Amino acid sequence: MLEQIARRVPFLRRSGLVLGPGDDCAIFRPRSSRSDWLITTDLVLEGVHFRPQTHPARAVGHRVLARGLSDIAAMGGTPRFCFLSLALAPWTGRRWLEGFLRGLAALANRFGVILAGGDLARSPQVVCDIIVCGEVPRGEALRRDSARPGDQICISGQLGGSACGLRTGRGRAWKRHLYPEPRVALGRYLREKLGATAAMDLSDGLSLDLHRMALASGLSAALQSEPPLYPGATLEEALHGGEDYELLFTIPAGTALPAAHRGVRLTRIGVMKEGRPGAVRLGRAALKPGGYDHFRGPAC
Amino acid sequence: MLEQIARRVPFLRRSGLVLGPGDDCAIFRPRSSRSDWLITTDLVLEGVHFRPQTHPARAVGHRVLARGLSDIAAMGGTPRFCFLSLALAPWTGRRWLEGFLRGLAALANRFGVILAGGDLARSPQVVCDIIVCGEVPRGEALRRDSARPGDQICISGQLGGSACGLRTGRGRAWKRHLYPEPRVALGRYLREKLGATAAMDLSDGLSLDLHRMALASGLSAALQSEPPLYPGATLEEALHGGEDYELLFTIPAGTALPAAHRGVRLTRIGVMKEGRPGAVRLGRAALKPGGYDHFRGPAC
Repeated sequence: MLEQIARRVPFLRRSGLVLGPGDDCAIFRPRSSRSDWLITTDLVLEGVHFRPQTHPARAVGHRVLARGLSDIAAMGGTPRFCFLSLALAPWTGRRWLEGFLRGLAALANRFGVILAGGDLARSPQVVCDIIVCGEVPRGEALRRDSARPGDQICISGQLGGSACGLRTGRGRAWKRHLYPEPRVALGRYLREKLGATAAMDLSDGLSLDLHRMALASGLSAALQSEPPLYPGATLEEALHGGEDYELLFTIPAGTALPAAHRGVRLTRIGVMKEGRPGAVRLGRAALKPGGYDHFRGPAC
Repeated sequence: MLEQIARRVPFLRRSGLVLGPGDDCAIFRPRSSRSDWLITTDLVLEGVHFRPQTHPARAVGHRVLARGLSDIAAMGGTPRFCFLSLALAPWTGRRWLEGFLRGLAALANRFGVILAGGDLARSPQVVCDIIVCGEVPRGEALRRDSARPGDQICISGQLGGSACGLRTGRGRAWKRHLYPEPRVALGRYLREKLGATAAMDLSDGLSLDLHRMALASGLSAALQSEPPLYPGATLEEALHGGEDYELLFTIPAGTALPAAHRGVRLTRIGVMKEGRPGAVRLGRAALKPGGYDHFRGPAC
């Protein structure tokens, strides 16, 4: 569908736009600026991304902003300000709005992010769209299309926690689902210290997101080990479950990967290779992209 | 409600943010840049801003972008790129999407605006959020809070066309409703040539928007004549009807207002005065803000 849009609307690189659609963020370079600016937009919809019966208002507010912050993190940037478009449904009251804002504000304050504007409306169902703008030194944003053959494929954290939480509806995994943690400090570390060659966030599941990174980089990906499982998660959930918001990244073959960064585990799971662009193998078997895709429906 | 949000989330001026919420756009000033950047976000929701039964897909695509372009126009800026968050409902098919994109792309191409990214999802009802970024020379954006006592209050075009079109559902007024024209060239002319002291776009109706401009500027507004009526529109529609997307602006007392700019009529309708901030009078009577407010419901 993006291709269909692309045919109609010009996607040219001008007006200071360095990178258009297809990555976690667009990159905008103001004239004579030492910084590039990252811009990302994410929808959160009632009935699609959350259900009023199960998701507390505070968690909805948190997740709205966390999605945008995670996109900035994935490019090694520092989030600066955001815009919130919010349509409230008839069932929401003052208490719901208070909770929503409490969740959003707590995360915004923690990362020093300013609410710069937005739009408000009423609608049959709750609709949120968050726009987050972040800063990165000129030309240094981590992209998903720049992995090289031989690069090590790595991930942060343990996978499948969010999908497991959504299945069980309780315990630590449920909290993990409700309050994902954007890996902002890790993203900067990957860019500044580890010399990562490519990065993206795991929003739609490892199998689908790794497929996308490999495709964008014109490479194939060989997973040599299964990803670390979140306690209680199945391998299926770790491979295909969405909304973990961990980082997927590549580092040069010779670079040593530390075991962790600020308490977040880092794991090497495979290697990028020349081959059919976008193909992903786990051991000897092909791993089909099975993560969440809005236009195919949920995988778990 | 904005105040409630403001209490929770920091609205500080830092990170290069010159102007936060409350105007048509936020203003962002990259370090050492000669330009300020305008950012605006607007929701368009099925059942709220359009109805599938009456509004053709092409008009929906046009109006989504027109809303954002009008905000850039109101600040005297030049639109550069945009982001589209779009959730498609089950009832939409390939043809609807084609029409929507045709409407959006035609307007984007006409103004040289690039689609820089976005987000796609499925939802029970169509949801669009458009983010438009525009450029203006540093420190020169037209704001709504800078009108001065004695300034002449002026508007572009004829008012009430959109509300009249929505009521009658046919003829020129209906087309006016479906395909509003963002006054981008006029906005630049107001800033560059006419020395406008304040400006905003008429999205929610003259009575409400003039109240907002007066309130933001700490002044009262005295209308000395009724605004020019769109053919077929009632005075009620011209005073309180929303979505005309004409410009409301103020110019110094001594400045002569041309009769038109590029075929768009310009009319002086009143004067800004010291007085109760936000109070609007039409002749001797108080004019209550009666325009469209999502949290009070439509006025027409």
